Amino acid sequence: MKIIIKNCSQCGSDRIDFAVPSGDNKKRYICKSCGFIHYQNPNIVSGSILEWNNKILLCKRAIEPRINCWTLPAGFLENEEPLETGAARECVEEANAYSDDMKIFSIYSLIHISQIYIMYYGTLRDGKHSPGLEESFDTKLYSKNEIPWDELAFPIITENLKLYYEKGKPTSPYTGIVDKVNNEYIITRNTV
Amino acid sequence: MKIIIKNCSQCGSDRIDFAVPSGDNKKRYICKSCGFIHYQNPNIVSGSILEWNNKILLCKRAIEPRINCWTLPAGFLENEEPLETGAARECVEEANAYSDDMKIFSIYSLIHISQIYIMYYGTLRDGKHSPGLEESFDTKLYSKNEIPWDELAFPIITENLKLYYEKGKPTSPYTGIVDKVNNEYIITRNTV
Repeated sequence: MKIIIKNCSQCGSDRIDFAVPSGDNKKRYICKSCGFIHYQNPNIVSGSILEWNNKILLCKRAIEPRINCWTLPAGFLENEEPLETGAARECVEEANAYSDDMKIFSIYSLIHISQIYIMYYGTLRDGKHSPGLEESFDTKLYSKNEIPWDELAFPIITENLKLYYEKGKPTSPYTGIVDKVNNEYIITRNTV
Repeated sequence: MKIIIKNCSQCGSDRIDFAVPSGDNKKRYICKSCGFIHYQNPNIVSGSILEWNNKILLCKRAIEPRINCWTLPAGFLENEEPLETGAARECVEEANAYSDDMKIFSIYSLIHISQIYIMYYGTLRDGKHSPGLEESFDTKLYSKNEIPWDELAFPIITENLKLYYEKGKPTSPYTGIVDKVNNEYIITRNTV
């Protein structure tokens, strides 16, 4: 999460400093009135690649950002929610889709937006899916040759689909980094 | 992160509602003056099991919580930081320790404190370590029989050391859940 803090969430003061707290080595938003430090850390996104008869389930986004683009079901992990539960919940919310054999697929650090993206893979239960209310306009099973590469929502979605087709199911999860430099996405796959 | 929001971080108003925003299904702190929604999501902790001559590196904590207890080097991932970099940074900050072959070891969801704990394992470079300024009182290499099980800082540290000795190095990372119910820790290992 990266948000500019203008007022203290605890005492309401607008005397906010952006400075390195004592004993720390990174700038934080510090309240000069009550001393409260507003820490900000990366968020986790979890989701899934669900397969049925050699086709992969994609969702057409009904919300910004990237409305109308196609994505794998994925979203922010919630407080008090296990990772696997978050990934499964997103499949239901976005595509009314379930899986009984989800395993970890990839872990990527999206450093330009401070997100850790953890994807699973599994079989779509009974091949059933439909657009999730509010979140998706459409859901569809795509074969490899039908994937709408030019209409995918985010570079990390493209990367996960490429990994799936190029490398198949992993023994240990694929890992890597996505960054954005001079408005261009740089994707680095870890080799270790 | 779980913090009670008393004032809006954007407009300073103390008219804060804890309610489900429109189109959402979870309670958030919403500012009734400017409408800003204060989302809160799990934090990521990353760290490492570093080995040298069949001994594991532990650090004696110099900071609360659990000051004076022994821990594996680990800490909160920072914004714009790749996961592996965070784990390596914590080894340096807490134990002036480096590794050249870190691989993923475990991913646990600590749901009672909304943390996702991602641990790596590797060889301690040259066997060198020393207490990190501010963070550790002491660092020490422990053999299996010497591990101070009763003086470990957190249940997730105990769990990772147990996994390492009981199951060895993983093909795919070990995963599981830690929860706290009626003041007792419940640890569940995933089997899939």
